[in-house]
Amino acid sequence: MFTFGAKIRFIPEAYTPSQSVSPDRALVSHVTACILNAGDRDAQIAVTLYFEDRDPVGPHARAVSDCRTRHLRSNDLSDPWSVPRDTSYASVIEPFEPSIVQHTCLDSRRTHIAWLSRMAWTSV
Amino acid sequence: MFTFGAKIRFIPEAYTPSQSVSPDRALVSHVTACILNAGDRDAQIAVTLYFEDRDPVGPHARAVSDCRTRHLRSNDLSDPWSVPRDTSYASVIEPFEPSIVQHTCLDSRRTHIAWLSRMAWTSV
Amino acid sequence: MFTFGAKIRFIPEAYTPSQSVSPDRALVSHVTACILNAGDRDAQIAVTLYFEDRDPVGPHARAVSDCRTRHLRSNDLSDPWSVPRDTSYASVIEPFEPSIVQHTCLDSRRTHIAWLSRMAWTSV
Amino acid sequence: MFTFGAKIRFIPEAYTPSQSVSPDRALVSHVTACILNAGDRDAQIAVTLYFEDRDPVGPHARAVSDCRTRHLRSNDLSDPWSVPRDTSYASVIEPFEPSIVQHTCLDSRRTHIAWLSRMAWTSV
Repeated sequence: MFTFGAKIRFIPEAYTPSQSVSPDRALVSHVTACILNAGDRDAQIAVTLYFEDRDPVGPHARAVSDCRTRHLRSNDLSDPWSVPRDTSYASVIEPFEPSIVQHTCLDSRRTHIAWLSRMAWTSV
Repeated sequence: MFTFGAKIRFIPEAYTPSQSVSPDRALVSHVTACILNAGDRDAQIAVTLYFEDRDPVGPHARAVSDCRTRHLRSNDLSDPWSVPRDTSYASVIEPFEPSIVQHTCLDSRRTHIAWLSRMAWTSV
Repeated sequence: MFTFGAKIRFIPEAYTPSQSVSPDRALVSHVTACILNAGDRDAQIAVTLYFEDRDPVGPHARAVSDCRTRHLRSNDLSDPWSVPRDTSYASVIEPFEPSIVQHTCLDSRRTHIAWLSRMAWTSV
Repeated sequence: MFTFGAKIRFIPEAYTPSQSVSPDRALVSHVTACILNAGDRDAQIAVTLYFEDRDPVGPHARAVSDCRTRHLRSNDLSDPWSVPRDTSYASVIEPFEPSIVQHTCLDSRRTHIAWLSRMAWTSV
């Protein structure tokens, strides 16, 4: 079907605040890696995290079914490692089927919320 | 005139909150797909939505006149399907004439508003 | 010096709210087109605006000196035309020397402020 | 390992407000240039800042270790020059090893915070 996008994706900036304005899941501070697999085969992706002062962790495998999007929240990662809070990190996502990657962050530390979003940088 | 941009566009992340701080249309939470047709022929576009836990819907056709921009709000889609609220989804937009696509989201669930915006990812 | 970037830039989405939380220039709602001319020759740029329900206006010429950035605020455009408030529009920027374009919007309608920013889409 | 990304990066827009809602480092207004060096060799980068009304400053050298990310905050730059507050500027970042660059800005002038983020534009 689609023959695009099986390229490594890079997101140099991410940060998950430990504080949130509400325990409501929709409003808890988080980073989301949004993967779109618009193809007709299941896709495996490998996520590696890079830090400022320690070795990378990963690659960590995740699956995205065909014709589905999957929105991976940093708060939900726990096996085999979790994403540290209040810590700057970067992500490299390697899809083994064509997939598109976008990063979105909700910061709800204050009594309001703030969003930021960016499409991953793609190796050419 | 212009010979750019007749390429498939991908936006892996979208989410339309059901709550809004105000019923004023300008402040209601929404996602907008902004299409620019800077060419001199009318453009048809086909929008398909992808979800985490159900089959894609679409393609859904829309027209953008020549030398016009069209800002499609998620809240205004109703025929043949509407965009579910409080649900993560992704979009694929296929223009049949050269057009540019950008996504913008207004989140007004809290007593303030928050914006996020991203240019669609383009197949090369 | 640099040999990049003399390409047409497209920003499908822009909107300048008429309301602002403060008359302080730094906090007035506005859209800014940020042009970077990192080369060693002055650059002319031509800006054209596209709307949903009327013909485009422009091209409108602006100059960016060599080795300078210029941040054009929508509120400051007045000759020969101004940018209408509370109106969706799109921009096409054509630089005649290599230049980079980014769009940033400050929305200060509410008692807080909200930012959104996006790099212009580039014809390949 | 990776053979991507040794390209010049451009960020036309940056602005570091002098005001902040809190002296807490995490909440002080700032701009961050986030560099990811996912390769296996240390990377040198050269940062040059461009202004609206004065000559560029730089290049200013920084190092990013192999397999690390480095998040350079505008507030921390002091040698040989600092980033002026309340001043529009642009950045050009030249990596001498493959590296990815993203810009993020926290604006905490008001009693809430606002984020904006954008991937740097890449010369092709």
